[in-house]
Amino acid sequence: MIAKDNPGWLAIAGLGPGDEALVTPEVTTALAQATDVIGYIPYVARIAPRDGLTLHPSDNRVELDRAAHALALAASGRRVVVVSSGDPGVFAMAAAVFEVVEANPVHAALDIRVLPGITAMLAAAARAGAPLGHDFCAINLSDNLKPHALIERRVALAAEADFAMAFYNPRSRARPDTLDRVLAVLRDTCADDRPVLFARAVSTPQEQLSVVPLPQARGDMADMRTIVIVGSGTTRVIARPGTPILYTPRSAS
Amino acid sequence: MIAKDNPGWLAIAGLGPGDEALVTPEVTTALAQATDVIGYIPYVARIAPRDGLTLHPSDNRVELDRAAHALALAASGRRVVVVSSGDPGVFAMAAAVFEVVEANPVHAALDIRVLPGITAMLAAAARAGAPLGHDFCAINLSDNLKPHALIERRVALAAEADFAMAFYNPRSRARPDTLDRVLAVLRDTCADDRPVLFARAVSTPQEQLSVVPLPQARGDMADMRTIVIVGSGTTRVIARPGTPILYTPRSAS
Repeated sequence: MIAKDNPGWLAIAGLGPGDEALVTPEVTTALAQATDVIGYIPYVARIAPRDGLTLHPSDNRVELDRAAHALALAASGRRVVVVSSGDPGVFAMAAAVFEVVEANPVHAALDIRVLPGITAMLAAAARAGAPLGHDFCAINLSDNLKPHALIERRVALAAEADFAMAFYNPRSRARPDTLDRVLAVLRDTCADDRPVLFARAVSTPQEQLSVVPLPQARGDMADMRTIVIVGSGTTRVIARPGTPILYTPRSAS
Repeated sequence: MIAKDNPGWLAIAGLGPGDEALVTPEVTTALAQATDVIGYIPYVARIAPRDGLTLHPSDNRVELDRAAHALALAASGRRVVVVSSGDPGVFAMAAAVFEVVEANPVHAALDIRVLPGITAMLAAAARAGAPLGHDFCAINLSDNLKPHALIERRVALAAEADFAMAFYNPRSRARPDTLDRVLAVLRDTCADDRPVLFARAVSTPQEQLSVVPLPQARGDMADMRTIVIVGSGTTRVIARPGTPILYTPRSAS
């Protein structure tokens, strides 16, 4: 049971892609009020320690355990922030928390808020211009949680619909060929001038951007810190010194 | 020609959905440094006047004129911020600016930056839970800029791919039936328990949320301040007092 006058709450907060100038004041305020911060080790490492704040860093791939821990702390009266990079609602911790709430409906009575953040694809798009300026989709290429055939089918339909596409988690050591398989699907249907953006560690000192035409795109151009954005059939490339500008016009052909 | 030592710059900045606590520090800093702020009247109205700052509010549907004006000011040495609501790269001003740059390539030499913001669908999703927690797409239902048949085809393919969907600009007086036509397409292929979120004026005092099953969704539940999010086939609804929680699990069926 959760006491009716329980002062605890849970905020699931997005820290953005890395630069502190991209953290919203709403998130900063929640962190200042928190008694506990919970999250994957590198995200918790971004939070400055202070008196009265307990940091709970945990490893990757324990999302449901972390969510259950956060809910239990909030139910006990603590003020808890679960930190995600980017936006917590996009391939991140918010869905994991609600999975645990659904399995333990008593938690639905808790004060749970999701605090949005700048998600990686929008930070990457901003750096490159406006490749997501018209209809687009976001696809998680991690096949830990879904069959690879579904990823390929979804990408093929997205190409048929002529969406620009943002790929999260394009590559890892355990799944080195996922992105190559997706790029092969795209090469079957898209023209050779389709631009592909590889945006790594956007807004951090390690930021790297490159734009190549689809035939030159290779899976090993990405790692787990990379967002890959594939233009739609209307996406334009404007040359300039350094990385070119990519943008998708507001009107569809 | 743009002088080599031109001190002017252009930032295309996202003000988020309305609440000042959702404006990033990066955007706040750019506004503090600006000599000129340009944008649609209600967005410019959010900027506090101060000495040394000229505000240039303009009407809707003059995006290319506004973009050209902003680029000309930056080329003349001014520090210019074009303000959009939400994220400037999502159905907003960034693409309009780059359209003008492409037509006038001399502008590609300017210092042009896009400053991301919290886009409406992610603010709406956060309020409702995590309906965009797995693969999703964003579609602009405005048919000012594309034929209606393309909208319907894209929605049908998105349903076939089983994306969650966010619809921007779902309705206006000039196009009262767009959303009804899209909902009819979805009813042809999606089960009756598919949840539909209507999120109006999120993060403002006028905020209103409602969740209905697809058969009960009607176009007149939306206006131009509404974002509509349709769950995927795996999206779950958790009852709680007030608006239920919507979330899409991280693993696909």
